[in-house]
Amino acid sequence: MKLREGVEWAVHCCINLSWISPDRAVPAARLAAFHDLPTAYLNKQMNALGRVGIVASRSGPRGGFRLGREPERITLMDVATAIDGSAQAFLCTGIRHHGPAGTITGPAADRTTCTVAQAFSTAELAWRRQLADRSIAELADTVRRANPAAPDQVRRWFDRP
Amino acid sequence: MKLREGVEWAVHCCINLSWISPDRAVPAARLAAFHDLPTAYLNKQMNALGRVGIVASRSGPRGGFRLGREPERITLMDVATAIDGSAQAFLCTGIRHHGPAGTITGPAADRTTCTVAQAFSTAELAWRRQLADRSIAELADTVRRANPAAPDQVRRWFDRP
Repeated sequence: MKLREGVEWAVHCCINLSWISPDRAVPAARLAAFHDLPTAYLNKQMNALGRVGIVASRSGPRGGFRLGREPERITLMDVATAIDGSAQAFLCTGIRHHGPAGTITGPAADRTTCTVAQAFSTAELAWRRQLADRSIAELADTVRRANPAAPDQVRRWFDRP
Repeated sequence: MKLREGVEWAVHCCINLSWISPDRAVPAARLAAFHDLPTAYLNKQMNALGRVGIVASRSGPRGGFRLGREPERITLMDVATAIDGSAQAFLCTGIRHHGPAGTITGPAADRTTCTVAQAFSTAELAWRRQLADRSIAELADTVRRANPAAPDQVRRWFDRP
């Protein structure tokens, strides 16, 4: 089980954007340079965030990305889903209905959710709930508490031409 | 994020084995036939379970698999880890230390765990805890309650030559 690498990138970019004035659009190349990431691939992740409104983009010479809504209203679940998709990690292929198993447990099984799928689904829900409970604003605040100068320094770096 | 398909297979096989006398070893071909699965690939999964003691195997003409310990002591976490590995789903590649970000948040960051990695790790722990809380015995019991004849019918099918 593995989340796409882009999730880490996207979350850090959202934290950085939360410290930059919402009037400013930051080009993908600039966001990428800050963490020494490949621009084209980061641009793909940022567009994925854009498709669900986590960021807003403006094209043109002064174009780029800014947060699409308040960082309080962007959760880690939002970002993870935008980048990694919303498919369940445990895929039930219904093997309890296949082969002889189907004639034995099949008829009763038809009326019930698969116990195995249900157990994995409950666990995954716990994971999703935890991520849905953490906002970009909260994470940015934790970073700021560890390093009070960070927001200003990040803002200044992005302000430089 | 996706768990390997073999996790579903392995859990159902463990449930089936929990209904079969621990004195009997069931060949992989027989376990596979019950759910119409490819024998060679299921055999690989069963060997992965064997490596961590979830099942015990016996070779030879009357060889096969049986549970390696009581089904009360086999959790979904055990099975998922045996088949899918124990690596974290969220891989922190430390991009907060890379590029200009490293000189801004780097020195303070060195002393702290990455907030982003920590948030994902906490969520994953919630997932693992849920799975560690569900045993094969409990799942088998839920199946039995939905279909009281299932254990006997499964046992009889596997008893047939």
